Amino acid sequence: MYFASDNSGPAHPEVLAALARANTGYAMPYGADIIMDEVRETLRSIFEAPEAAVYLVATGTAANALALATMCAPYETVFCSPTAHIHEDECNAPEFYTAGAKLSIVGTLDQMTPETLRSSIEAQQTRGVHGPQRGPVSITQVTERGAVHSLAQIKALSDVAKSYGLGVHLDGARFANAQAALDCSAAEMTWKAGVDVVSFGGTKNGCMGVEAVIFFDPTKAWEFELRRKRGAHLFSKHRFLSAQMQAYLADDLWLKSAKQANINCQRLASGLRTVEGAQITNRPDANIIFAELPRAAHQRLAAAGARYYVLAGDIDAGDPNEPLPCRLVCDWSISEELIDTFLDVAKG
Amino acid sequence: MYFASDNSGPAHPEVLAALARANTGYAMPYGADIIMDEVRETLRSIFEAPEAAVYLVATGTAANALALATMCAPYETVFCSPTAHIHEDECNAPEFYTAGAKLSIVGTLDQMTPETLRSSIEAQQTRGVHGPQRGPVSITQVTERGAVHSLAQIKALSDVAKSYGLGVHLDGARFANAQAALDCSAAEMTWKAGVDVVSFGGTKNGCMGVEAVIFFDPTKAWEFELRRKRGAHLFSKHRFLSAQMQAYLADDLWLKSAKQANINCQRLASGLRTVEGAQITNRPDANIIFAELPRAAHQRLAAAGARYYVLAGDIDAGDPNEPLPCRLVCDWSISEELIDTFLDVAKG
Amino acid sequence: MYFASDNSGPAHPEVLAALARANTGYAMPYGADIIMDEVRETLRSIFEAPEAAVYLVATGTAANALALATMCAPYETVFCSPTAHIHEDECNAPEFYTAGAKLSIVGTLDQMTPETLRSSIEAQQTRGVHGPQRGPVSITQVTERGAVHSLAQIKALSDVAKSYGLGVHLDGARFANAQAALDCSAAEMTWKAGVDVVSFGGTKNGCMGVEAVIFFDPTKAWEFELRRKRGAHLFSKHRFLSAQMQAYLADDLWLKSAKQANINCQRLASGLRTVEGAQITNRPDANIIFAELPRAAHQRLAAAGARYYVLAGDIDAGDPNEPLPCRLVCDWSISEELIDTFLDVAKG
Amino acid sequence: MYFASDNSGPAHPEVLAALARANTGYAMPYGADIIMDEVRETLRSIFEAPEAAVYLVATGTAANALALATMCAPYETVFCSPTAHIHEDECNAPEFYTAGAKLSIVGTLDQMTPETLRSSIEAQQTRGVHGPQRGPVSITQVTERGAVHSLAQIKALSDVAKSYGLGVHLDGARFANAQAALDCSAAEMTWKAGVDVVSFGGTKNGCMGVEAVIFFDPTKAWEFELRRKRGAHLFSKHRFLSAQMQAYLADDLWLKSAKQANINCQRLASGLRTVEGAQITNRPDANIIFAELPRAAHQRLAAAGARYYVLAGDIDAGDPNEPLPCRLVCDWSISEELIDTFLDVAKG
Repeated sequence: MYFASDNSGPAHPEVLAALARANTGYAMPYGADIIMDEVRETLRSIFEAPEAAVYLVATGTAANALALATMCAPYETVFCSPTAHIHEDECNAPEFYTAGAKLSIVGTLDQMTPETLRSSIEAQQTRGVHGPQRGPVSITQVTERGAVHSLAQIKALSDVAKSYGLGVHLDGARFANAQAALDCSAAEMTWKAGVDVVSFGGTKNGCMGVEAVIFFDPTKAWEFELRRKRGAHLFSKHRFLSAQMQAYLADDLWLKSAKQANINCQRLASGLRTVEGAQITNRPDANIIFAELPRAAHQRLAAAGARYYVLAGDIDAGDPNEPLPCRLVCDWSISEELIDTFLDVAKG
Repeated sequence: MYFASDNSGPAHPEVLAALARANTGYAMPYGADIIMDEVRETLRSIFEAPEAAVYLVATGTAANALALATMCAPYETVFCSPTAHIHEDECNAPEFYTAGAKLSIVGTLDQMTPETLRSSIEAQQTRGVHGPQRGPVSITQVTERGAVHSLAQIKALSDVAKSYGLGVHLDGARFANAQAALDCSAAEMTWKAGVDVVSFGGTKNGCMGVEAVIFFDPTKAWEFELRRKRGAHLFSKHRFLSAQMQAYLADDLWLKSAKQANINCQRLASGLRTVEGAQITNRPDANIIFAELPRAAHQRLAAAGARYYVLAGDIDAGDPNEPLPCRLVCDWSISEELIDTFLDVAKG
Repeated sequence: MYFASDNSGPAHPEVLAALARANTGYAMPYGADIIMDEVRETLRSIFEAPEAAVYLVATGTAANALALATMCAPYETVFCSPTAHIHEDECNAPEFYTAGAKLSIVGTLDQMTPETLRSSIEAQQTRGVHGPQRGPVSITQVTERGAVHSLAQIKALSDVAKSYGLGVHLDGARFANAQAALDCSAAEMTWKAGVDVVSFGGTKNGCMGVEAVIFFDPTKAWEFELRRKRGAHLFSKHRFLSAQMQAYLADDLWLKSAKQANINCQRLASGLRTVEGAQITNRPDANIIFAELPRAAHQRLAAAGARYYVLAGDIDAGDPNEPLPCRLVCDWSISEELIDTFLDVAKG
Repeated sequence: MYFASDNSGPAHPEVLAALARANTGYAMPYGADIIMDEVRETLRSIFEAPEAAVYLVATGTAANALALATMCAPYETVFCSPTAHIHEDECNAPEFYTAGAKLSIVGTLDQMTPETLRSSIEAQQTRGVHGPQRGPVSITQVTERGAVHSLAQIKALSDVAKSYGLGVHLDGARFANAQAALDCSAAEMTWKAGVDVVSFGGTKNGCMGVEAVIFFDPTKAWEFELRRKRGAHLFSKHRFLSAQMQAYLADDLWLKSAKQANINCQRLASGLRTVEGAQITNRPDANIIFAELPRAAHQRLAAAGARYYVLAGDIDAGDPNEPLPCRLVCDWSISEELIDTFLDVAKG
């Protein structure tokens, strides 16, 4: 019963099978492998973007930091929400890769709004050479609090960015979960809504460790390649990144897995709503639930071997009815039985 | 009638005279000049810190950025208020010099409180290797909104920092104005209140361009010297920095000037309180006033050649009674007559 | 017939099998997986270094750049040979990760000598704060030109470094090939010879993409972890790095593979010495040969599908007897038959 | 008798007078002062470059590092001679400001030649994404060994750079000395010879601390301004930089001073040629002499209070006739009498 994160689940058997298939004889290194040629074309097709520049790296932080470094000068500032992964969970990687750009925190909520974004951008207006200059806007889709931006929301944020001539980055570590939730196309969720560069996650949704970075405008493709190499993120045996992504994209595995993860999450959410004293505190649009459970429920779950993050409080000592906050993440691999067992234990 | 900033006034005649005196024959370069030996001892004496490491640079941003780079690892975060000069007015210099450390904004007010500081520090607790690590606390004294921290306030913030093992930096671009306002000793306002490193300003208070950086613990003195050189802030003809600081410190010129600037500010503030429709919106503890004046007053002042920052609104078009915010800064050199003329024009 | 590089060959079946074994259910992310616990202990045992800090990353450049960043301040300089991978083949990654440290090139040969190293270190002596400060020495073992440093050579270089208080890094992208060539222990080739930090390669010798970084003194272990995360090199599904290394170390697979690669190289070298007009131009101590072959031989090999780097000249046009330089790299997976076929084609 | 460096002499009385003149009332800060307007136009006129972007900073290292950072991406490499100030004497400032670009050392001599430059550039050709990319060429005029490049030499180096599409930077810390030596125009020594960006020194030739950076193509002017601010090199009381440069340029003070320094150097060189056992070892084209003097001469000079760098050997102990190398630098302020006294003492 592991609900701690979608970064700790297994890889798809198809991904492992693709690795084995790719492991025959020699292959051109450093991204010149023929599987990468296929992956590039597949992603261009999925995104309806025949000119897009497409690259693979092994971690989501690398995808984000390298994308932002290509978009943002060191004297500029990235605009993002206070819960953005790039702000809270990357140990200053964006600042490192941009050579010291600032992250400007927009509003106080999990999601930027056009109003808070405009206000933050305006606040960088009056200081001339003295303040950081306006740089790209980074939208997290799915957010770290589990919310999925609607197409209209993305469009509205992009419109604000564009009205100032700023680029738009989408941190799509859970891109597939968002697309599955919105039931839209990849193009609709990105360039048709004004997004310029996408971090397209694979790791959290069934790969071992691979993310794509997609530039709809390929002007800076070579710069990105140099930054990737200089960041030590260019794989010599690149075919093993390509093969993962190949399997992930084949037969819509990525979307099917994400749908399953979202369905698992809905099942868990529905069940939690029937647990006495439990309350869901976020909008579980995709595969992440924030909830409060009574201490006693946490105690029973811990005893039963359930793993997830309790975000505050001591589960061992205190009023058994006191609600303690937690995060529950579902990936594709969790079975209905496991979810139901979890719920049964929670109910006591 | 120039109230735009204390960075635009003249230098003291004594400062120029000291430059002329220093300009005889040859002098050891790069900080080995004998005037610097004197300056070092004088500052150690003023700060009652016989072991302190003392360095000169030419800009306040250099003092801050180099001090913080010596205190803060690139994977750490500096804690500061949202109006801190290091955050708003240094075009990412702290991020640059620290190789990409983050600035964490504490609270929403001009001044951090022990509570907001503790809360910000705590928020960097639970992410292990993933989040930025806790780094130094930077206090701005005088704040950019004109407030002076009391000794107790500095002590309380330092105590919070110390309780987490964090260093404390004081951005004292207007150090003298603050000390004059508090009528305390330099030691009381710094190491006796828990401050580890000080940016001690000269430029805004009558020098041409010189700031001292003072480390009460000299352990990192050599590292600072290397960072200063690498930052291109080591002057070959260093005697001309030393001479400015020498004149600034001699006969308490620094304190006398600051007192005069503060008195000028009080005179201006008192007068403004009698201007119809005018309102002072900050706590003008030192030499900076934030106020709202009716548009008509701004118009009269502009016509009379007064220079200062109007912070919002169009002074030319609109209701003559509508209050528009502005900032008014006094330095030591402004005459009573000029202040009174300004007030007369404002009153109309 | 692929002799272009050992970074383009397949992974060992054992490595793939280990990935499959690791892919069961959930595992703690970010290096907290139990396979990593085993890998850490195995490497400590192999290196006879029970206190060593051991980390995994996915690329050799990451291993080197992160190791050096932990050893070298930004105002210091790394000493290395002119052919070092960190200097020629990492697109400024060491400069990036160290925040701008310099690489000082020692001598003009593939290998530093105690004399050239001492001379380079001495040359950084007389400039005080103005020049880069002395930093770590980085030894490449096997060198990019195929030479293996003897234990005495490593010791002699380390002794020079130690006499100045400098750290010693070993870039062991081909660590196993070197150890196999020297028939020594891992401890003898490293800390017993004065090495402080090792980049221990797996990728070029049968893994998909994994390298270990080993600090014999664990003092900076936490700093390394933070730098790894900030560099975006911390894998969430870390077990898939661990599993590769686990398989690589098990049953001496790493040494067996390296021995095979070296034997393959000896077979190729012996054969080349019998090719008319061919000349081996390096010391092929491990698995890399630099040679000159007549243009006609290159033409025959190209026609037969052989892949390797011709380093200068146009193989298509010119005197058929003109020798053109090339590099030939053997990995463990090349068969005797393939080598013999290559030689037959070369002979014409 | 101070011949240690031209960075330790006094400032011109005219420079001090200009500071005093500038010190009246208020002035626009941060480079918006009217003196700067005049300086900009004067430099544009001197350089026959009406579109040039012109900026002031206080140190030569700042001028070089900021200029190069504007010209060179972090994944590129600057080409310079092994004795270049940017390589040997700036404690990695260029690496810092460029965010980790590499300096590639061209040849082994004080001056690059078209052949060695071309060879170095070519060496950065074959590695694709793996090696540093080709960046700007930096020429030091006067070199650190005292040589002045002829116009033809500058042109020949620029031609090589241009043939690869690379920019050309001129480190002119001693620009005036070089121009005086060549008896040419500023335009001839720069853009007419292919130079794109100039560090135009003032400090070593009679200013207190000011250098201009001149971009003949103003495309990157705003980027430079942002980098200057972010580097903490933007002066608030900028008029005091402007005034120095104003006085320096007025009535050809800069050229007159440089001519005097060069004449002083010629007088010293001529005299040294008559000192028994003395030998001049460089080409003293401008104001710097490298020479060998017998130990006894050094002893006599030291006893007489002469100050200069002895570059090797112990002057106190050893054969009195053994030649020991030294550097002797003349600035404008040294009197004929002092030079003659120095020579008399040297002769013994």
